[in-house]
Amino acid sequence: MAKSLTSSSEKIGLSPGSLIHVGEVFDNDTVITLINYDATTLEEKVISSVEEMLPYRDKSSTTWINIEGLQDVELIRTIGKAFKIHSLVLEDILHTHQRSKFEDYENYLFMVVKNLSLGLGDFSIEYEQISILVFKNFIFTFKEKPTLLFDPIKIRIQNSKGRIRKFSSDYLAYVVLDTVIDEYFSLQDSLDELMEQIEDELLLSPSTETLNTIQHVRRELIFVRKSISPLRELLSGLHRSDSPLIDEKNRRYFGDVYDHALRVIESMESYRELITGMMDIYLSSVNNKMSETMKVLTVFASIFIPLTFIAGVYGMNFEYMPELKMRWAYPALWGVFITVSVGLMIYFKRKKWL
Amino acid sequence: MAKSLTSSSEKIGLSPGSLIHVGEVFDNDTVITLINYDATTLEEKVISSVEEMLPYRDKSSTTWINIEGLQDVELIRTIGKAFKIHSLVLEDILHTHQRSKFEDYENYLFMVVKNLSLGLGDFSIEYEQISILVFKNFIFTFKEKPTLLFDPIKIRIQNSKGRIRKFSSDYLAYVVLDTVIDEYFSLQDSLDELMEQIEDELLLSPSTETLNTIQHVRRELIFVRKSISPLRELLSGLHRSDSPLIDEKNRRYFGDVYDHALRVIESMESYRELITGMMDIYLSSVNNKMSETMKVLTVFASIFIPLTFIAGVYGMNFEYMPELKMRWAYPALWGVFITVSVGLMIYFKRKKWL
Amino acid sequence: MAKSLTSSSEKIGLSPGSLIHVGEVFDNDTVITLINYDATTLEEKVISSVEEMLPYRDKSSTTWINIEGLQDVELIRTIGKAFKIHSLVLEDILHTHQRSKFEDYENYLFMVVKNLSLGLGDFSIEYEQISILVFKNFIFTFKEKPTLLFDPIKIRIQNSKGRIRKFSSDYLAYVVLDTVIDEYFSLQDSLDELMEQIEDELLLSPSTETLNTIQHVRRELIFVRKSISPLRELLSGLHRSDSPLIDEKNRRYFGDVYDHALRVIESMESYRELITGMMDIYLSSVNNKMSETMKVLTVFASIFIPLTFIAGVYGMNFEYMPELKMRWAYPALWGVFITVSVGLMIYFKRKKWL
Amino acid sequence: MAKSLTSSSEKIGLSPGSLIHVGEVFDNDTVITLINYDATTLEEKVISSVEEMLPYRDKSSTTWINIEGLQDVELIRTIGKAFKIHSLVLEDILHTHQRSKFEDYENYLFMVVKNLSLGLGDFSIEYEQISILVFKNFIFTFKEKPTLLFDPIKIRIQNSKGRIRKFSSDYLAYVVLDTVIDEYFSLQDSLDELMEQIEDELLLSPSTETLNTIQHVRRELIFVRKSISPLRELLSGLHRSDSPLIDEKNRRYFGDVYDHALRVIESMESYRELITGMMDIYLSSVNNKMSETMKVLTVFASIFIPLTFIAGVYGMNFEYMPELKMRWAYPALWGVFITVSVGLMIYFKRKKWL
Amino acid sequence: MAKSLTSSSEKIGLSPGSLIHVGEVFDNDTVITLINYDATTLEEKVISSVEEMLPYRDKSSTTWINIEGLQDVELIRTIGKAFKIHSLVLEDILHTHQRSKFEDYENYLFMVVKNLSLGLGDFSIEYEQISILVFKNFIFTFKEKPTLLFDPIKIRIQNSKGRIRKFSSDYLAYVVLDTVIDEYFSLQDSLDELMEQIEDELLLSPSTETLNTIQHVRRELIFVRKSISPLRELLSGLHRSDSPLIDEKNRRYFGDVYDHALRVIESMESYRELITGMMDIYLSSVNNKMSETMKVLTVFASIFIPLTFIAGVYGMNFEYMPELKMRWAYPALWGVFITVSVGLMIYFKRKKWL
Repeated sequence: MAKSLTSSSEKIGLSPGSLIHVGEVFDNDTVITLINYDATTLEEKVISSVEEMLPYRDKSSTTWINIEGLQDVELIRTIGKAFKIHSLVLEDILHTHQRSKFEDYENYLFMVVKNLSLGLGDFSIEYEQISILVFKNFIFTFKEKPTLLFDPIKIRIQNSKGRIRKFSSDYLAYVVLDTVIDEYFSLQDSLDELMEQIEDELLLSPSTETLNTIQHVRRELIFVRKSISPLRELLSGLHRSDSPLIDEKNRRYFGDVYDHALRVIESMESYRELITGMMDIYLSSVNNKMSETMKVLTVFASIFIPLTFIAGVYGMNFEYMPELKMRWAYPALWGVFITVSVGLMIYFKRKKWL
Repeated sequence: MAKSLTSSSEKIGLSPGSLIHVGEVFDNDTVITLINYDATTLEEKVISSVEEMLPYRDKSSTTWINIEGLQDVELIRTIGKAFKIHSLVLEDILHTHQRSKFEDYENYLFMVVKNLSLGLGDFSIEYEQISILVFKNFIFTFKEKPTLLFDPIKIRIQNSKGRIRKFSSDYLAYVVLDTVIDEYFSLQDSLDELMEQIEDELLLSPSTETLNTIQHVRRELIFVRKSISPLRELLSGLHRSDSPLIDEKNRRYFGDVYDHALRVIESMESYRELITGMMDIYLSSVNNKMSETMKVLTVFASIFIPLTFIAGVYGMNFEYMPELKMRWAYPALWGVFITVSVGLMIYFKRKKWL
Repeated sequence: MAKSLTSSSEKIGLSPGSLIHVGEVFDNDTVITLINYDATTLEEKVISSVEEMLPYRDKSSTTWINIEGLQDVELIRTIGKAFKIHSLVLEDILHTHQRSKFEDYENYLFMVVKNLSLGLGDFSIEYEQISILVFKNFIFTFKEKPTLLFDPIKIRIQNSKGRIRKFSSDYLAYVVLDTVIDEYFSLQDSLDELMEQIEDELLLSPSTETLNTIQHVRRELIFVRKSISPLRELLSGLHRSDSPLIDEKNRRYFGDVYDHALRVIESMESYRELITGMMDIYLSSVNNKMSETMKVLTVFASIFIPLTFIAGVYGMNFEYMPELKMRWAYPALWGVFITVSVGLMIYFKRKKWL
Repeated sequence: MAKSLTSSSEKIGLSPGSLIHVGEVFDNDTVITLINYDATTLEEKVISSVEEMLPYRDKSSTTWINIEGLQDVELIRTIGKAFKIHSLVLEDILHTHQRSKFEDYENYLFMVVKNLSLGLGDFSIEYEQISILVFKNFIFTFKEKPTLLFDPIKIRIQNSKGRIRKFSSDYLAYVVLDTVIDEYFSLQDSLDELMEQIEDELLLSPSTETLNTIQHVRRELIFVRKSISPLRELLSGLHRSDSPLIDEKNRRYFGDVYDHALRVIESMESYRELITGMMDIYLSSVNNKMSETMKVLTVFASIFIPLTFIAGVYGMNFEYMPELKMRWAYPALWGVFITVSVGLMIYFKRKKWL
Repeated sequence: MAKSLTSSSEKIGLSPGSLIHVGEVFDNDTVITLINYDATTLEEKVISSVEEMLPYRDKSSTTWINIEGLQDVELIRTIGKAFKIHSLVLEDILHTHQRSKFEDYENYLFMVVKNLSLGLGDFSIEYEQISILVFKNFIFTFKEKPTLLFDPIKIRIQNSKGRIRKFSSDYLAYVVLDTVIDEYFSLQDSLDELMEQIEDELLLSPSTETLNTIQHVRRELIFVRKSISPLRELLSGLHRSDSPLIDEKNRRYFGDVYDHALRVIESMESYRELITGMMDIYLSSVNNKMSETMKVLTVFASIFIPLTFIAGVYGMNFEYMPELKMRWAYPALWGVFITVSVGLMIYFKRKKWL
């Protein structure tokens, strides 16, 4: 999880703008998918070189190139040349520690977002950087590794369902952003469940285990927030942008994604507050338990210590201890023992310690 | 209560803009009420289809359609078509996890607010999303379920009392918002009471029960704030809006609702600070109790342990212990016992432990 | 004190804009004072009806109507009609739970401020809402109850001292605001004293009493801040307002009140931080005391428990215990007792526990 | 130190604008120094009346009037009349509880700053209000009491060193502000030292003394911040001001002072965070010590209590206790004693308590 | 480390603008390196006087003067004269306690940044001020001491690799800033490692050592943030600046550095939150340990104290104690001993203390 923070210095000493893949390396080949569609036609194929893209560049139908895997730096460089992409953009695509951002270049829009998905095991989150390049009728998406994230979009295009086939690359960009942010909601659901579970544990049997889970969730939330909060900027930038690449009619859609993003960001803030509250509960439960232990000790010690003293007194070996000779002394002493202990028990009962 | 956070991912994988009801499902039929009025005439009826609304669309009198229940997606879709409502708006009406918001479309204004009402039992809050669509002379309100919330408005319209019958749909929108926000004040009153009760408990007999109540209220406050705070934006947007749908004369009224909303938001902030303070009090009360227990233990132990030692000494079986033979030794020892214990009690009295 | 938060829902279900007094009811008759003055003439009288005000309406001299007591709703309504005051303004005057605010109407300015005065007893604060209506040459002030607050202003007008008689209603509005805010400074002085007292208590003998005072002050500070902080907005609004009702020359005066208000608000913030610090001190003093108790217990127990064990050993009744027969054994054992206890005391001395 | 907060209500009930000295009264006569200079000439004298200033009013050389002591209200009033100073400005000069501020009047600029100097004894800070009035070729500085603060400026003017003699009153104002803010840096140095000392104490031997110092510094920091933070506003106001009294070339200098002020303000923020961290350290050191005490007690008690029980068993006086008769029983029991205690010690060693 | 805060008052009493080196003094000679290049030619030499720079002043090729060491005030003064640099700028170069800042002078741009590098030993950070003066075709960099920081830049220029040789001084300024900020990332990596190490320690064996490390890191983070956060301002100033010295095409590059700076600043914020969480964990671990100790004590004491009392009873010397005569009494008592202790152990087992 700390991956998003480490290795950021790998590139130190290199020329700014020199292309090299910085980030976690996934052991898979780069997969390039090309989808070309308009309202009536549809073509989908896996391609392996930049040359295959070029014929689609000037078509009036919409072309979506989805690149999964960033190991092949040469490929990115070639695309950069063919589509006249600024070297800083290429660099940002390859360095997967970017903040989410939106940049408005003359011929294209550039967006970076983070896809957050639940990993296996104890609430661990996997971060993937998704870069989007929106040209007129052409859209690139760059993913770090092949996942099923975009499958529903592809199916929707294939089914010719919804507005998607009638609109151009800007609408597709919206759909991609919407898909990524929808993923955050499922993260949120799983967080919800985890939170409830922690709360139950806190009420029933708080343990250091619980504390570790709390700290783990807190840690994750810090990084999630760090990844998600720049979205606000990104989307308001996109919403305000007067780029001719965004159709006036589609502007509302980005406003909608903005609302969703705000909703997620605010939920994350709420979770952080809840987690802080849980920490307090945990601390006070530890103190409560200590206080309970203390009471048990105090009750036991306070009742028996005086009795032991009295017994000790009559265990002394003085020659002249008149009580020792008296017949009723021993039973009387038992009376004393009982009286003292009952008296103390009433006292502790009153103090609500029993 | 966590409902407002869960289930948000139900729609994942669906086309954005595809209509489906997302949120808690209430088991009741959809009830559509139509109220048509101007200064002199008034008509109120329960209708069951969109066709019945259409004749009122172009009337100069004001028509209010109140729809309670969102299960009937087809109904919403038909209204959408008949009144040319943007598909994103229809979606927002059906997905009841929206943030409160205001959107200014060309022919209509769209607002989403949250109605917060006290549920039964231990300070549990029920959230209901209310969507308002303001056309010229036409207003829609969408509620998740039938409640009595709007009854006072209806009665006022019937009684022809107040300004309400003389003004158009924008004033009615104001009245609806005002009604929803007034509801927050009753929530606030019940919070007030609860806070006072917690404070009393904290002073008299803090228990883990109290802690749970504090955490429960804290939790609720986090979600209430999350629901209420976007109102600020909504209302200032409405106030600044230059939509021709809002009569210049009525603009002040929205300013008034804005003031009320600010007041509620600020109160909620105050409660949060109070709750934090209460948590501190609770923690220090636990520590205080522990400290008290400690003192009792220390006083008992410190007085009797030395005495027990002395008694132990004269319980030893050495042959040559001259004291054992002395006649006055036993009473003298009692003198020692009393002196030591009185001395220690004075010492503890000085330390203010007794 | 919590009054400012309670009862806010009394009006729920009423038409917005319907006039009814919402707030604490004081058992006193409404007192209306009229003061009419210019640089040379002065007239002051108690009046009982709106009709008596009307002749002054168009005079070029300045008229100040001070209304103390808000039970008489009919009076407010009549004034509203006679002076053409917006119904929302009348409502705000009567609902004494308003936020401080400034509103710029065409013919008049409307301000609401809170007067905070020290009540009797343990630092309890009394809130009173003061509404100010500034017309050209005419000013209304509405108070919840008769107090001496405005007496110095009256005296100044009577004495023809200072600038007050030469200026019109805007300057008088400034004087009223200045008087209200000066009152905050005396509140601040009394807080100062209380804070110092709490700090002394914390150093000398912190008790749960101290904790309660701290929490009480914290609570009051939260509500004071809630009442005072909207002043910033009010006064900057007033300062920026381009209403012809405020003479350009007098604008500086409102800037001066703004400075004072900022000063009070900042002081309140400082107090809140101080109070938070005091809470920490209190908590650590509880822990410190517990630590002290612990040391006493540990020293007593650790010294005597081993000794008691040794005494116990020689209290055993074994037949073959050679030490019991030795003449020097008993005194030698005392040597052991003394050595052990002195040794332990040196050990504890080194640990700085004695 | 709390002086800056107390006595603020002294003026309550007075006409706003009535001149009276509000603040701490220093027992010294008012000293007025006049320095008149241009690039070539220099005149310095102590004067005693306003009349002596007047001849310099229209000279083209720069005149600096430094007034130390504010008891002589009449003097301030006379200056006010002679130089046409707004009555609110005179009031602000005399009421030494002002926030630092900058006001741009038509003929002059008015600034209030706070001089913070270290008093004797335990890090106590003395506050002095310095008011600056900048006219064309004329500058007034008002101090509460005579100090050496401005001596270096005088010396520089005398020595005709640096730019100071070539520039007019605006540059002199800059020099005065720079001198005051430089003083903050020496305060900062002494804070630095104190912080380091507290940190050392916390590591070596934290005591309630340390806690008191921490709280004392925290308190002082709250007030220092309250005094210093309005400087940001003051200096950015000055920097943005388009007053003809500030030469375009000198504007950079005020920007420089602004940078210094920011630096001090940020350092104070850092100190506050450090202090909060120290409080945490202190609290955990108290808890740590308690935990240590606990361990000592537990080790002693847990080892000797079982042994004492065993000794107690063989101190019983039953007739039929076969062990008592056995020859090897007593030495065997010693074996048991040693085994038990060594076993427990190993156990505690494993728990790292020894 | 506290160096960045100390000694700031050294200059007090001096004329503002008087040149003197304020800051840590490094014992090394000042090294001046001159690099002159354009796309085709390259000259690099170490020079020792300002005169050697002058011939390059008006060349169309780019000249970079790197000055390492600030002891030679005369040198700075001479450069200032030769290049007409404002005296405040010279001052800022020499006083190495500046905030990072950007100033736009007519003929040149002035930037101050802080280079943060890891010192040897326990995560200590070394601060170095780097001042950059950007003229048309001419750039000065001032460092406090000779380090290898700029070596990669020199190598890149020598190798004629990348864009660097084709662009002018503004691009070089970008490269310098980028290099400094890249250094922050390696700092971040080492922080990452340290954080992980602390977390592991907290889980396995928290000690006061751990606490000291936490406080140390917290302290460093406070100062790092103080050094880094003004970068936001600097870079957005640079980005917005319309100075002709920055080529429109290069503006994007500064935007890129801005993104990097934001990333570092946000990471530092995340670390601060993590550290706060760690402090909480530490505190609760101390409390947990105390609670454990308490349980051991309570279990031991509560089991053996009642037993010891019973043994004490039968150690009493009363003549008439019938039990003492009974044959089965002693073994029966052992039964009691075992029953009581087993009963208590079951009780503690149920309480989960064993």
